[in-house]
Amino acid sequence: MKNIITSSIAMLVILLGFTSCNNGNQSGGKSGALSNNIAEKVYVAPGEYDSHYAFISGGYSGNVTVYGLPSGRMFKEIPVFSQFATSGYGYSEETKPMLNTSHGFVPWGDSHHPDISQSKGELDGRWVFINENNTPRIARISLTTFETEEIIEVPNSAGNHSSSFVTENTEYVVAGTRFSVPIPQRDMPIKDYKGNFQGALSFISVAPETGNMDIKFQVLMPGFNYDLSHPGRGKSHGWFFFTTYNTEEASTLLEVNASQNDKDFIAAVNWKKIEEYVNNGGGKMMPANYAHNLYDEHTHTATSTMKKEVRVVNPIDVPGAVYFIPTPKSPHGCDVDPSGEYIVGNGKLSANLTVHSFTKMLDAIEKEKFAGEAYGIPILNFEDVLAGVVEQPGLGPLHTEFDGKGNAYTTFFISSEVVKWKIGTWEVIDRKPTYYSVGHLTIPGGNSGKPQGKYMFAMNKITKDRYLPTGPEMEHSAQLYDISGDKMELLLDFPTHGEPHYAAAMEASIIKEQSQKIYKLADNKHPYAAKSDADTKVVRNGNEVHIYMTTIRSHFSPDNIEGVKVGDKVYFHVTNLEQDFDVPHGFAVLGQNNSELLIMPGQTKSSVWEPKQVGVWPFYCTDFCSALHQEMQGYIRVSAADSDVPIKWSLGEDIE
Amino acid sequence: MKNIITSSIAMLVILLGFTSCNNGNQSGGKSGALSNNIAEKVYVAPGEYDSHYAFISGGYSGNVTVYGLPSGRMFKEIPVFSQFATSGYGYSEETKPMLNTSHGFVPWGDSHHPDISQSKGELDGRWVFINENNTPRIARISLTTFETEEIIEVPNSAGNHSSSFVTENTEYVVAGTRFSVPIPQRDMPIKDYKGNFQGALSFISVAPETGNMDIKFQVLMPGFNYDLSHPGRGKSHGWFFFTTYNTEEASTLLEVNASQNDKDFIAAVNWKKIEEYVNNGGGKMMPANYAHNLYDEHTHTATSTMKKEVRVVNPIDVPGAVYFIPTPKSPHGCDVDPSGEYIVGNGKLSANLTVHSFTKMLDAIEKEKFAGEAYGIPILNFEDVLAGVVEQPGLGPLHTEFDGKGNAYTTFFISSEVVKWKIGTWEVIDRKPTYYSVGHLTIPGGNSGKPQGKYMFAMNKITKDRYLPTGPEMEHSAQLYDISGDKMELLLDFPTHGEPHYAAAMEASIIKEQSQKIYKLADNKHPYAAKSDADTKVVRNGNEVHIYMTTIRSHFSPDNIEGVKVGDKVYFHVTNLEQDFDVPHGFAVLGQNNSELLIMPGQTKSSVWEPKQVGVWPFYCTDFCSALHQEMQGYIRVSAADSDVPIKWSLGEDIE
Repeated sequence: MKNIITSSIAMLVILLGFTSCNNGNQSGGKSGALSNNIAEKVYVAPGEYDSHYAFISGGYSGNVTVYGLPSGRMFKEIPVFSQFATSGYGYSEETKPMLNTSHGFVPWGDSHHPDISQSKGELDGRWVFINENNTPRIARISLTTFETEEIIEVPNSAGNHSSSFVTENTEYVVAGTRFSVPIPQRDMPIKDYKGNFQGALSFISVAPETGNMDIKFQVLMPGFNYDLSHPGRGKSHGWFFFTTYNTEEASTLLEVNASQNDKDFIAAVNWKKIEEYVNNGGGKMMPANYAHNLYDEHTHTATSTMKKEVRVVNPIDVPGAVYFIPTPKSPHGCDVDPSGEYIVGNGKLSANLTVHSFTKMLDAIEKEKFAGEAYGIPILNFEDVLAGVVEQPGLGPLHTEFDGKGNAYTTFFISSEVVKWKIGTWEVIDRKPTYYSVGHLTIPGGNSGKPQGKYMFAMNKITKDRYLPTGPEMEHSAQLYDISGDKMELLLDFPTHGEPHYAAAMEASIIKEQSQKIYKLADNKHPYAAKSDADTKVVRNGNEVHIYMTTIRSHFSPDNIEGVKVGDKVYFHVTNLEQDFDVPHGFAVLGQNNSELLIMPGQTKSSVWEPKQVGVWPFYCTDFCSALHQEMQGYIRVSAADSDVPIKWSLGEDIE
Repeated sequence: MKNIITSSIAMLVILLGFTSCNNGNQSGGKSGALSNNIAEKVYVAPGEYDSHYAFISGGYSGNVTVYGLPSGRMFKEIPVFSQFATSGYGYSEETKPMLNTSHGFVPWGDSHHPDISQSKGELDGRWVFINENNTPRIARISLTTFETEEIIEVPNSAGNHSSSFVTENTEYVVAGTRFSVPIPQRDMPIKDYKGNFQGALSFISVAPETGNMDIKFQVLMPGFNYDLSHPGRGKSHGWFFFTTYNTEEASTLLEVNASQNDKDFIAAVNWKKIEEYVNNGGGKMMPANYAHNLYDEHTHTATSTMKKEVRVVNPIDVPGAVYFIPTPKSPHGCDVDPSGEYIVGNGKLSANLTVHSFTKMLDAIEKEKFAGEAYGIPILNFEDVLAGVVEQPGLGPLHTEFDGKGNAYTTFFISSEVVKWKIGTWEVIDRKPTYYSVGHLTIPGGNSGKPQGKYMFAMNKITKDRYLPTGPEMEHSAQLYDISGDKMELLLDFPTHGEPHYAAAMEASIIKEQSQKIYKLADNKHPYAAKSDADTKVVRNGNEVHIYMTTIRSHFSPDNIEGVKVGDKVYFHVTNLEQDFDVPHGFAVLGQNNSELLIMPGQTKSSVWEPKQVGVWPFYCTDFCSALHQEMQGYIRVSAADSDVPIKWSLGEDIE
């Protein structure tokens, strides 16, 4: 083991990392005159509404959670990349295909960065996109149904972290790899990493009407780690910026070996230029297996298609398309101000916060003022592209957002604070502690062309003593600040579910209006739907038994079923006939090696059951739905494999 | 189909069920002078603590959620009966046995009624018990670690609903079947239900020191539905009370056919008498397969044992042990006041609320004043046991809790309200609307001998317009009331996660003090633990590869691994070496058909990975843990099945 500790700065940072939570006074406020005043600011009285939606990454839950601001209340967990037993997502026949990948069925994901779709640089509230880090994927969530509608796998990628962020008209959702890997994947020694591994930056087109995703092209970059990214906007629309670290190309003990260089890079990618190149036939199709999964809201069913090739582009084949901007070491966030002029490289091991200028970048490119190149990609001079430096604002800057009033807000992990500073003068205006070790922060629209800056919330990585304890495992903590005045005002601590990497937030009005209440039964095109009690039936096909079942307050039809045998594969296809808002029904049968179904009004969902034991087994509605919910039950008789009990079913009378 | 609608009352109730949400003014308050005052009552300022814990059933999530009161914030979701991708529960090698049953691995459950352990009739804060309804089970959760420590399956049961409630010294946790079934299970026509199906009431002993559960005996009752139950306490300690419905013994269209009888029963069970009978060798051992799963906090591993028999008791063999009290039709909740004198049968299809007297019951029994018998069990006279009636308090009474100050609070599903009434005078004192269709309510300790009555919260079944909408699917809504005054005061709407059937709540002090912060590494007895970097290794055993791995800020050891082949079964055994509170690490490897691991300080967890593709695949820490978290990664090389690449591993230097 060599070079374990070669950098005293790295050592310092490691030590700071270990002690970041022992920062004195842990109380953010006391109840009394002051906090009572604050209480009014976050209290949403019964019957009233929050003013903002926040879509918070569930991190290692694989999901997205929906919160209201300023109350900090969680209104829904939307299953995205993980099985979700609560609703049967990833268990029901209709939703299992959503979790299909080139590696087979993957029951879990690590969601990171939600981003709301944009039109003309403003949030339009149509969709939320979010990336999966571990088995690289991008998902699209509908903001009318609040359900995951589409997941596309990202080939040639590993640790899909610098994702998912949309361009200002949602032309693309962009996904950059965190880890570089052999492309294509092949057996090779890990020690041959340097110069052989590559990092793919994927530009995924979004169809304007449907939102459907397709990988337009991948840029195959040098074997660095690509950490975070944001689009240019306004004057810089057409560009995309990615932070890199591990430009040392170390493959072991990165905590030391990837902290050697004083500067890493921001990769500036002119995607408009590459798009033109590709539209003219540039790049090459490369064999690559990746899944594309689509959920259809009329059939209520997902289908998974395995794609076989992807277009890849070598950046040195497109002169003028990619440049490296040196930025202080090991940057994390890569944030662009609302005007598109300033690119903040949040150098997490740097004492200063460095801001780069888009105008200066173009100027330096035009003048061909390069400091050198890396794998054929021109490196600009740090000074030529420098807009300004916020001097010694804190320790460990990670992420920056904007209020649209000329101010920026940066989180500092090590010194556990949010610092407000002025764009242009680079002066620090305010700083507030966070509890503890803040990661991302979110201002509604704060990374778009038009921030809706009234609130900001910090998502903290360490919770410790902020809530009543819950054993060794705690939820993470977020903190809500009022940023409408000169100084930030801490309003509320609220716990988040999973690991809140990042959140996208927006004023409520558009989404509130468009939110769908039911699925129309008339539009239900599920192949096994029964649209009335009269359509219900039980059909045997070999050892498959298909039960076309309906549910409505307060019975299942049929509710007595006989003729099923051990060894059968029994499909319960349950259609919820209700057409009233918020009247789901659930379905479960005793001893199933499966989850329940949770079926919204107008929807059909299917569960497979392979009974192993002879007997008379009950099923019931799992969602308390009416005064006679407890009466909403039935029995299914399971006979021996060689039995001659015929298929029969009934409701309201005995099977004879 | 016959007898579809034979009862006009049933029809009325069905209609009411359909229209219960259209009840006029839907706003519970307006912000302004009044609500500001209320805001102060629920606001917990940053750095301060909630005064109460609430353990809320997740219902069809299969889990338990931990909330703080009065803030309504969710602090943890404890996985119990369902796979939980967030932490790897039900996916990791250590926790998969927790979900084993006689039906095999069951990934989901329907949790219902949490109950905190008691000593001398008071909450002692040691454990929370909760039932699984679908595949009948009872779980025990530790309130030092907030983890599920034990799950026992309940044989001969189906729809384990009248569960889980503890006796006043936690001698037993009691589980009653909702559905009656053939006992033992066997192939028989559903139409032969009446007189042939039976309902099992299970008395599960709890070891005083460890909490370990064992089914002491099951009482095999007539084939009714057993809905809810509560223990006697104080003077009635030694008895247990169960509501029954479907005493008609219908097996189809219960919404009509189980609503025929004007009265159903409360089954009063003298468990002390049956315990004595059993201790003297009474009852008989019956073959029955059921799983008993125990999690060991030192090995950090669960084991599942399949038990082979259970002791069953025929109630008519134990004279004086079981009686039926007639109670108004189709009762739901069965609640006993703090003194143990009054048993409330919440007749959900009744206009009145009927209270039975324990003293009168004993008197009638002594005088052998019986109205008849059902399957050999004596039926008491309704009037003989009547304590009083709360006249026309509302529509659809479901559940009652107590404040310890002589008052009771009953929820009314159909009229959507909570009604406060006085024990003894039976007069209504106050009523407050709920939004909408309230099910259970909880007062901390409100169903024990010593309620801690400052707050009450109602758990509503229908949400509709209470929050910003989230498409067709909404979280359920709870409402918090201040009950310290004569009139109830609505304080807060807060969403719950999953379906909040019931909750157990308690003042925070005891649990807050005992909550465990870490697992001691020195106590870690996991067979694959590596307790320092020096203990890490990779061992091949046939096609199994065991990786003894450690994790600490900010590296894995080893972080370069070679010699793994396609077709291998690779076990990552990851030990978190941290000994600091709230520093978990996570582990995931690209493309795994599994979830991540979330590993608490001092813990070891294991994930199995069966790589299918040759390549060099990254793994990383999934929980942002330090300033150098992003550097916390490694690579594992997968070679072809016939490759001769040897097993090697390293940290900080290349594998040569």
